[in-house]
Amino acid sequence: MPHINLALIGFGNVGQALAQLLIRKQYDLKNQYDISFTVTAIGTGTHGAAINPDGIDLNQAISMIGSKASLDALSTVPVPTDGLSLIKNCRADVLFENTPVDYETGQPALDHLRTALELGMHAITANKGPVVHGFKELSTLATSRGRKFYFESTVMDGAPIFSLFRETLPAANLIGFRGILNSTTNLILSRMETGEDFDEAVTYAQSIGIAETDPSGDIDGWDAAIKVAALVNVLMGISLKPADVDRQGIRAISARDIQQAKQTGKRWKLVCSARRTGDRVTAKVQPEMVSSDSPLYSVDGTTSVVQFETDVLGLLSVIENDPGPETTAYGLLADFINAVTPRQ
Amino acid sequence: MPHINLALIGFGNVGQALAQLLIRKQYDLKNQYDISFTVTAIGTGTHGAAINPDGIDLNQAISMIGSKASLDALSTVPVPTDGLSLIKNCRADVLFENTPVDYETGQPALDHLRTALELGMHAITANKGPVVHGFKELSTLATSRGRKFYFESTVMDGAPIFSLFRETLPAANLIGFRGILNSTTNLILSRMETGEDFDEAVTYAQSIGIAETDPSGDIDGWDAAIKVAALVNVLMGISLKPADVDRQGIRAISARDIQQAKQTGKRWKLVCSARRTGDRVTAKVQPEMVSSDSPLYSVDGTTSVVQFETDVLGLLSVIENDPGPETTAYGLLADFINAVTPRQ
Repeated sequence: MPHINLALIGFGNVGQALAQLLIRKQYDLKNQYDISFTVTAIGTGTHGAAINPDGIDLNQAISMIGSKASLDALSTVPVPTDGLSLIKNCRADVLFENTPVDYETGQPALDHLRTALELGMHAITANKGPVVHGFKELSTLATSRGRKFYFESTVMDGAPIFSLFRETLPAANLIGFRGILNSTTNLILSRMETGEDFDEAVTYAQSIGIAETDPSGDIDGWDAAIKVAALVNVLMGISLKPADVDRQGIRAISARDIQQAKQTGKRWKLVCSARRTGDRVTAKVQPEMVSSDSPLYSVDGTTSVVQFETDVLGLLSVIENDPGPETTAYGLLADFINAVTPRQ
Repeated sequence: MPHINLALIGFGNVGQALAQLLIRKQYDLKNQYDISFTVTAIGTGTHGAAINPDGIDLNQAISMIGSKASLDALSTVPVPTDGLSLIKNCRADVLFENTPVDYETGQPALDHLRTALELGMHAITANKGPVVHGFKELSTLATSRGRKFYFESTVMDGAPIFSLFRETLPAANLIGFRGILNSTTNLILSRMETGEDFDEAVTYAQSIGIAETDPSGDIDGWDAAIKVAALVNVLMGISLKPADVDRQGIRAISARDIQQAKQTGKRWKLVCSARRTGDRVTAKVQPEMVSSDSPLYSVDGTTSVVQFETDVLGLLSVIENDPGPETTAYGLLADFINAVTPRQ
């Protein structure tokens, strides 16, 4: 296989975890898949950018970010002024797009991925925005250029969800799904079962870096809704925007509700669901009490689960325990390997 | 894609369910994958065999088996005398091998699959025997002939397990797994929780066709052990025979044990597990009490589960609810589609 040049746009927790995983797995990639690679471009939000056709030292780049230095110093060509100019000048074969999500427009990720595909690169992202706002366009573009648009890490981190259907469930029709897809709210509900009130649980989730300073995107169900929309768009072939999801967050769940559920052997969960009826789909994010005969019951803390109903397998569930940036990074790596290798 | 000829050896519940699924999905296969096919040979254990290069009417074949007629009448060439002669004379492109399992030798499935691969066919089976007794040999042979040896339906019916690792978890190293892989014993333990004693639960499992007349292969853990061996051989790359699995069945679990576990919020399960230590593996089948924080806890009746620990994703679990011959048939269909199509 020809040597492969990689460009990384977005070099926060996930981008850096990807760089570390690429270092750790480079011998396995060569030995098992005959893949050799060089990272020739890195673009960051606030720490500059670098293009070096001879290859950027990933350990050095991570270390520079750690000491808040600009990556501009690593560039051997004029430093690109923004993401698009980096993509246009990096001559990479694969773009990893990991800029922050914009729920409303999917930008700038959408433009980054489109430009990469137009230039003949494989386009891989952990960003939900362009999946919800550009799945059809980017998939069609990728196919027309003989390249791949993959995004495994956008739902349930690196757990195989999109590749599960794409690669292992051919000719299966997805009828519906139910799951727990937002880590922050599940952690908050789990903490409340141990006696914390809502605000204490939110503060705890913020203290360990799971919840953001403004946690409303999670608590009001927006993150869950965009994941539901991504699953419906890709796996059910039905165009659905996050705003079309019947959405209710967890603000109304009181400590008393939690304790009452516990007394009857149940647990409150923020349940994501969708169900096809003809050409339409009903999609919801809402708190529900689940009992111990459901695979959702044992899902604690930041763990996530999805239960798929298909026309060929009945119910099939996938659970991913305690994800983190390194599991998201693995989804990106898996997409990369699958994009450039034939079926094993 | 060129037209594909299929041969089916073994035409019991699974073989007939496959035939029905092939009929049901023929338009999807053509529309989504450009696959057109004809079944040109069917071999049965006790109802004869048929080769017809122009195609065998699957509905007619199923109907004849239902009325205990011999398929010999459908053959347009001299009726093959056994499985090997059917394979040698059928000129198929894909062999589906669904004869009954032989735990000790893997025969005659092993010979059937080897012969098919040598003749340039893809070889697909739901039979665990040849996986445990011939995985390396058959995989190597398949690779050397540019064909596939696939066997998704041998563990957890049609749920993606082998294809999960092969297609969606590239470069992942499997460290160990825990699961419930035998439906009969899980159904028996579930029934005992409702108050039945062991013998009553066994009788019930036999009455609905889940347990065999001699249920010892399930109850003593042999079926579970061969599935553990299949997973270890294929996914961990370590040669392991079913007899090497530290095996204990469920005969010693009393109604009282079940009730005591229930009182402490736990459930008895026949747990399959394996764990790698260097180049070696420790593999077990034994009854264990599991608590509600485990995904094994909610697994009731004939449902099965496996929880994988890898170096890249932490814990990843797959649950398949209430499998049957039609889900096993789907695993065979998925193998067929994956064998003949490039990555999507």
